[in-house]
Amino acid sequence: MSLHLYIPGPVQVSERTLQAMTQPPVGHRSPDFVSLYQSIQPRLQDLFYTTGPVFLSTSSAWGVMEGCVRNLTRKRVLNCMNGAFSDKWHDVSLRCGLEATALQFDWGQPVDPEALRRELATGAYDVVTLVHNETSTGTMSPLDDLAAVLREFPDVISVVDAVSSFSALAIEKDRLGIDVLLTGAQKALALPPGMALFSASDRAFERAAKVKTRGYYFDFHEFLRNHEKGMTPSTPVISLIYALRSKLDDIFSEGLEARYARHARLNAKVHGWVERNGFSLLPRKEFASVTLSCVENTLGIDVPAFNQVLKDRFSCVIDGGYGKLKGKTFRISNMGDETDASIDALVGYLDAALEESGTAKA
Amino acid sequence: MSLHLYIPGPVQVSERTLQAMTQPPVGHRSPDFVSLYQSIQPRLQDLFYTTGPVFLSTSSAWGVMEGCVRNLTRKRVLNCMNGAFSDKWHDVSLRCGLEATALQFDWGQPVDPEALRRELATGAYDVVTLVHNETSTGTMSPLDDLAAVLREFPDVISVVDAVSSFSALAIEKDRLGIDVLLTGAQKALALPPGMALFSASDRAFERAAKVKTRGYYFDFHEFLRNHEKGMTPSTPVISLIYALRSKLDDIFSEGLEARYARHARLNAKVHGWVERNGFSLLPRKEFASVTLSCVENTLGIDVPAFNQVLKDRFSCVIDGGYGKLKGKTFRISNMGDETDASIDALVGYLDAALEESGTAKA
Repeated sequence: MSLHLYIPGPVQVSERTLQAMTQPPVGHRSPDFVSLYQSIQPRLQDLFYTTGPVFLSTSSAWGVMEGCVRNLTRKRVLNCMNGAFSDKWHDVSLRCGLEATALQFDWGQPVDPEALRRELATGAYDVVTLVHNETSTGTMSPLDDLAAVLREFPDVISVVDAVSSFSALAIEKDRLGIDVLLTGAQKALALPPGMALFSASDRAFERAAKVKTRGYYFDFHEFLRNHEKGMTPSTPVISLIYALRSKLDDIFSEGLEARYARHARLNAKVHGWVERNGFSLLPRKEFASVTLSCVENTLGIDVPAFNQVLKDRFSCVIDGGYGKLKGKTFRISNMGDETDASIDALVGYLDAALEESGTAKA
Repeated sequence: MSLHLYIPGPVQVSERTLQAMTQPPVGHRSPDFVSLYQSIQPRLQDLFYTTGPVFLSTSSAWGVMEGCVRNLTRKRVLNCMNGAFSDKWHDVSLRCGLEATALQFDWGQPVDPEALRRELATGAYDVVTLVHNETSTGTMSPLDDLAAVLREFPDVISVVDAVSSFSALAIEKDRLGIDVLLTGAQKALALPPGMALFSASDRAFERAAKVKTRGYYFDFHEFLRNHEKGMTPSTPVISLIYALRSKLDDIFSEGLEARYARHARLNAKVHGWVERNGFSLLPRKEFASVTLSCVENTLGIDVPAFNQVLKDRFSCVIDGGYGKLKGKTFRISNMGDETDASIDALVGYLDAALEESGTAKA
């Protein structure tokens, strides 16, 4: 029996989504593919809150994240860092041979708009990278405030990773003036992993046009040129595009507002469990992610033993903490297709596992 | 009803393979994933004829092809070109900002070992790219002879694209001394698209270690470091790895020799149809691909009309020619899971379609 994944990606995938992948592939230069591609664009644009194109990249989100700094940086990129993934983006920028500066905050802290403004005011940068929802720490940075700062610097291209927040709440790309917004398949979209999605502004394309070494596989202009024909630059992961189409049916049947409300409600249920048991969240409450809870292990429980009980007794699994936070935190996802029933069940399992692993609060 | 794909990729995918994808994803840092990854390594090594690691890249083959030139080129890459894909590899090399030289042959001609030797003897190169089986022209270059030349230049790293030949005949990577051998999922392996596989030599890793701007997503050393833990660098396309595992079961139940013989036999059936109808193959017979037939349209048939009859009457499709060969050639795949029955059926359809489209030979 397979485990119900309450880890922050890959998350639990519905049987309906899995079955959608069994439709036989079509030629990726055929009219059938063009129909498929074009049929999902309007709903993807709604989800991205953009009138621009939404691209499908056959890669994990990291491919697009690397592609962004390669396509967009002529001068110097500023990497806002407050957790494992945003930290790594800086490392990746350097490994692409780019000039890059770290704007560092403690893990569990959000990115501070004032600090961002001060740094951009130096005029040293033409690109900023920002992780909206740091999956490693369950911290959601204040995107409205950050976007307001970014709009003060129109020559700086903004790249926002919404890998683990996208579609769980409204991220209004065009209204916020975000140049590039990207996400992955296996987080709040609850698809199997293997695809990334992104949308880019005209300013981003103008910048990319001036960068000579952007390569091919993640070249923004290859995506754009092929998009105009209803295609992808390279052979795409068609089975996941079928799954995405099916998921868009799910999302728009539920309705976006209902979907956002569901994520908020289920997240609050997990927070309730955290508080009731005397744990606390790693980030301050106002910056706590709405898609996953990064719980500080204030009670000093044996996290692997706790998770083992969840696996053995309840056929489910949470995450035991990422990187340097392993064991010091644990993470519980409520993203994707989770329901009141599945999160209520989880809360029961968590209570029972605390008892059984002998780590319940006295 | 879906069309039976006799196009050279994506090819027809069996129901068994499609169903394999419906297994729920597991966490890609979990023991379950490590078991999956490690369970398929020995058979992948057998298929690659190597004792080295076989890596799984969540991308089309183009991602790895770009990754190879980025990882391996310090001085200058020589791109052997004799068709659309090998030509494009040169363009991609230039777009990565690399020093690159074209070694050009006419489309439909194989890469000539003597010409390769002369060019390498200049000492200008440290990497060579070579497409074993040019899918655009159905031309298979003489890999044994080319590899013998490459072995004369031990400082030159050889990269061989076997995208549309891999697993249809033996390509003995280690014996031939090929440094990097790569392939895609959706050709002779008959998986849905979205994954590439490659194996690299110690010399390739040594070279890559000296290249500073190899980036992250396709970084050879990231693949190697993660491979040693039974993992991939980024979240992998797990559903396709399930499909690959299922396909390896198929391949090794049939047996490699039987598989190779089947491809040769089915290919000969298509060649028989070509000759019987007074067409000819684009390449000379000794360089004709064993996985697809690129048929020169010597009779001047209306290829789109011909293909339309195949679609409408027989629910199948062939390819109408690639790039500048569109309409001047058409291509018929016999790779993957095709059987005597499915190719015999196709031959019947081709005959009938020639009649019906009014383009049969008088």
